[in-house]
Amino acid sequence: MIQVLPVEGLPEIREGDDLAALIAERAELADGDVLVVAQKAVSKSEGRVVRLADVEPSDDARELAAGEDPRRLQVILDEAVRLVRTRPPLVIAETRHGFVCASAGVDSSNAPEAETVVLLPEDPDASAQRLRDGLRELTGSVIGVILSDSFGRAWRQGTTGVAIGLAGIRPLLDLTGVRDSAGYELHATVIAVADELAGAAELVMGKTDGVPAAIIRGYDARGDGSARDLVIPAERDLFR
Amino acid sequence: MIQVLPVEGLPEIREGDDLAALIAERAELADGDVLVVAQKAVSKSEGRVVRLADVEPSDDARELAAGEDPRRLQVILDEAVRLVRTRPPLVIAETRHGFVCASAGVDSSNAPEAETVVLLPEDPDASAQRLRDGLRELTGSVIGVILSDSFGRAWRQGTTGVAIGLAGIRPLLDLTGVRDSAGYELHATVIAVADELAGAAELVMGKTDGVPAAIIRGYDARGDGSARDLVIPAERDLFR
Repeated sequence: MIQVLPVEGLPEIREGDDLAALIAERAELADGDVLVVAQKAVSKSEGRVVRLADVEPSDDARELAAGEDPRRLQVILDEAVRLVRTRPPLVIAETRHGFVCASAGVDSSNAPEAETVVLLPEDPDASAQRLRDGLRELTGSVIGVILSDSFGRAWRQGTTGVAIGLAGIRPLLDLTGVRDSAGYELHATVIAVADELAGAAELVMGKTDGVPAAIIRGYDARGDGSARDLVIPAERDLFR
Repeated sequence: MIQVLPVEGLPEIREGDDLAALIAERAELADGDVLVVAQKAVSKSEGRVVRLADVEPSDDARELAAGEDPRRLQVILDEAVRLVRTRPPLVIAETRHGFVCASAGVDSSNAPEAETVVLLPEDPDASAQRLRDGLRELTGSVIGVILSDSFGRAWRQGTTGVAIGLAGIRPLLDLTGVRDSAGYELHATVIAVADELAGAAELVMGKTDGVPAAIIRGYDARGDGSARDLVIPAERDLFR
């Protein structure tokens, strides 16, 4: 059995907050747990917040804005290394981490104050590792950490939780060569367990109720890797 | 807290098996539970199995096969209403249900015997509804049912569980207009909870260990809808 437990009672996160300490005070962690933390809480603690008043929009940003705030579009263009699709003001872009997502991960909901937007962490794996190390020091428990965001998908409606950073986690479960119950070898069966864990956590985290973290207990995700392992290599990508 | 419980001890499913009865014998269901059942088990019980010996491959199928069994490619072409991308022998196609996935949902692993492939159910929502009705009759419990499959994604490595059929389930959680903790209205925030539930279930179901069903307890997914609600409407699809 797997349990998905919300970490409740966390305050609104601000720059400089010690997220590991805030979580350690509110959660009973056990060895082998997976802690999923919403990217936005981590980004805010790291000060990855841009004041729109400081942004000067370019002509490109004005064109993409289609009536919305061109400064927000400028931040998206600054975060993007490649625009994948645009339908102003909607922009699907590749971030410098390699993630393809709406608005290059720039988010204006849940921002700490009006007229600000929140960026993805600079190095989400490193953010996850810091949380993992901090929680090990504070609680003694050896856990895995996933930084989650909610991405849209091609062809499918709605967003689902995905892992954009991780530490102490095996992101993919490769069943290639494993035999199924009829004795046939499975091929090309690689399960993105880190994304499934992020999605399961989102079920208890919600978007609005101030639960930016959850613990998943009973699933052995221990291992190594990077959230970049979840990005399909360019040469195998049929949808670039 | 959400719990994800595997339904253990199910036999290999064959055509004509009463899946509801087999599950009712092995699971304690409670009102409000979500039962996630692997599509393949449902398809097999419904006889959605094709013997490759009965398939005559076309020239198109031979061309797409690239050395693999052209009869399997022929079944994929028969199931597809549109080819989205091909890199022989890999085919990403739209099924008649509107799902975009590898091999139009045709699966050759876990087939009941050699030289067969398994198709998606003809009407996966109806399959879910039959299971829901059967389990209500057998157990008295009013549950939601999701038929799950594991789909690849554009840009991301690995597959995740998705809902391809459902009954008694609200597939999408629409937070548009809801205010976040800072008082700002969330826009364009629709969470594909049915897919997140399918993904959470896959964590306990695995692919090879004969656990084709799981129960999710503690998440209120009650509502109405169709798995087709999870397909992005053509006019809003930037990736057709």
